[in-house]
Amino acid sequence: MTLILTFLGKGGTGRTTTAIAVAKKLSRLGCRVLLTAQDPSLGWELGLPLDMNPTEIEPRLYGQQFFSTALLEKSWEKIKELESQYLRSPTLKSIYGQELGILPGMDEILRLNALREKAQSRQYDVIVYDGSGDLGALRMLGVPEIADWYWRRFRQILQDSDVVKTLLPFLQPITGAIFSASLNFDNLADSPKSPEKFLAEGRAFLSDPQRFAAYLVTTSQPQAVMMAQHLWGGAQQIGLTVKGVFQTPLDPAHTAMDVSSFSPLSVTHLPQRSGQDWESLINALPDVRDILPVPQPLSVEIAQRQVKVFLPGFDKKHVKLTQYGPEITIEAGDQRRNIALPPPLSGQPVTGARFKDGYLIISF
Amino acid sequence: MTLILTFLGKGGTGRTTTAIAVAKKLSRLGCRVLLTAQDPSLGWELGLPLDMNPTEIEPRLYGQQFFSTALLEKSWEKIKELESQYLRSPTLKSIYGQELGILPGMDEILRLNALREKAQSRQYDVIVYDGSGDLGALRMLGVPEIADWYWRRFRQILQDSDVVKTLLPFLQPITGAIFSASLNFDNLADSPKSPEKFLAEGRAFLSDPQRFAAYLVTTSQPQAVMMAQHLWGGAQQIGLTVKGVFQTPLDPAHTAMDVSSFSPLSVTHLPQRSGQDWESLINALPDVRDILPVPQPLSVEIAQRQVKVFLPGFDKKHVKLTQYGPEITIEAGDQRRNIALPPPLSGQPVTGARFKDGYLIISF
Repeated sequence: MTLILTFLGKGGTGRTTTAIAVAKKLSRLGCRVLLTAQDPSLGWELGLPLDMNPTEIEPRLYGQQFFSTALLEKSWEKIKELESQYLRSPTLKSIYGQELGILPGMDEILRLNALREKAQSRQYDVIVYDGSGDLGALRMLGVPEIADWYWRRFRQILQDSDVVKTLLPFLQPITGAIFSASLNFDNLADSPKSPEKFLAEGRAFLSDPQRFAAYLVTTSQPQAVMMAQHLWGGAQQIGLTVKGVFQTPLDPAHTAMDVSSFSPLSVTHLPQRSGQDWESLINALPDVRDILPVPQPLSVEIAQRQVKVFLPGFDKKHVKLTQYGPEITIEAGDQRRNIALPPPLSGQPVTGARFKDGYLIISF
Repeated sequence: MTLILTFLGKGGTGRTTTAIAVAKKLSRLGCRVLLTAQDPSLGWELGLPLDMNPTEIEPRLYGQQFFSTALLEKSWEKIKELESQYLRSPTLKSIYGQELGILPGMDEILRLNALREKAQSRQYDVIVYDGSGDLGALRMLGVPEIADWYWRRFRQILQDSDVVKTLLPFLQPITGAIFSASLNFDNLADSPKSPEKFLAEGRAFLSDPQRFAAYLVTTSQPQAVMMAQHLWGGAQQIGLTVKGVFQTPLDPAHTAMDVSSFSPLSVTHLPQRSGQDWESLINALPDVRDILPVPQPLSVEIAQRQVKVFLPGFDKKHVKLTQYGPEITIEAGDQRRNIALPPPLSGQPVTGARFKDGYLIISF
């Protein structure tokens, strides 16, 4: 099983340096490691130009830069192939993958899929993803969670729509196929998986700390700390486990940091790297593969008729609980999470909610 | 006419601080200024909680934080309203804007539209947008350029498609309406504008330096400089004018920066801000409304049968010119730009290309 690790934190706190050090440490511990990024900063920091083909940096450690243009080309060829299988007069064949520009959202979908493919290939024990580390990274990693809600909420409603009824003869074969093509175009020969199954697999993948985990990176500077806390809460909103905090020494003012603000996570102080000497930094790192007792983003206690949502880093007044649709909606950090509850609680009205020690406790 | 200004550069170089100082300077010069961001950092740096409602910071200076959740709610209500006007049995009415989660790409589309609305309202002389400042910001600002290409390229091809022919009776009224609703839902009563017209207006807006301009922000640290140069080139790829460079003093190593690497842009050295004393920083800033002679991203010289594309910050080997489709495609910085040439050059084969002094010169 491949573990994907990523880093969340304010820009300029040393996320890329930390990602490199973690990758180097893991490869020395015997893991096959892929260190990957979209940003050219990773290659600049390594002093090695990176591209779509993984380049060996050290024994067992490979570096790669994702290019959305190249990923989109590959997806487009598969979509054209599918269209030609399902429609008598395919129309997309005269548009070339090499012409396609990138619209917002494409980067995230293409990269998430590329990470998933890399993990499924089992070529690596650990993939260290040096992403944008901000709300944009959470949007990307939240796709299975959010898309699964859109699917379950819109499916029933759209089935009753005139437009969709007219479209069904065209849509049924192709949507299933394109869905699995865009999310899994390795096995074109296999029968396409249902969207439900794909999204459920994606959610399971993202919320399993043995397959996907994040670390917070911060200096002791107050705004970097606030951003790390904010992103910690944001990670819970998409079901992503945050395993710990790395405090980097880049704060020129050397402010003191209150480590209790990240409790119960452990904070590891990292030393300054001097030039290309990575040893002291590598030695200061923990083994990121360790399984740590960190709070679950969500727990449902049917007997007590309670749902506990771990939402650290948010202030009580920034967390909103509503029940407009058939599910409960939690809004915090400009994110929304809809929670489908199991049968005894499903569809029940909320009778109370309180916010205590970073937990939102909802009673039914 | 409202000018929108934004800042591009590596995280941690002081983009937010610079944005605040620019906004303060402009309001002291008598402008009505809106300082806006998605990130909570802006409010933290100001020591003032911001939300969707503009808050007065100083006379004539207002601060606002965009929330995609709130922007999406507003768009959703308009889409439902339109659906009920155009379909006999509307299906979306039972889904509430307050439930909707945010998928990748929504932030960018919603924020770009919010900026456009704010500019059109003429409430402000200048809007200072403290965005992500990275490739993601360029994706957002590139939407009119890229979407316009998708529209012109796919329109003809899809018109011939069986699926689209069946759909037309349903799609024609609603696509025009939704298009103008999502991009311009102020004037629901007006007849919907055609997508072509919207996109052409969007491109004109983004490429007019009196309405939209960016500044680069960098420390003297080599990787920050490389990122600023890279984003300078990336801005040209979407037709966005970069007016100058702000060098901030945040580099702990105090490396010397070669200002000629940004020629012909002028580099302004900014001092360190101490606490809440903004005066020296504000005084060091130029008047960002000045019209400066900066290179045009694209110029077509029909007599010489040449197209000149300004692509600073990229190395020759990272710029790719292809001609797969009916237009010429320029690939650089994980971005693609398709250029529709005017009649005498349109459809002509490229006879030569060279890269000189930051310009890609293409001959036909």
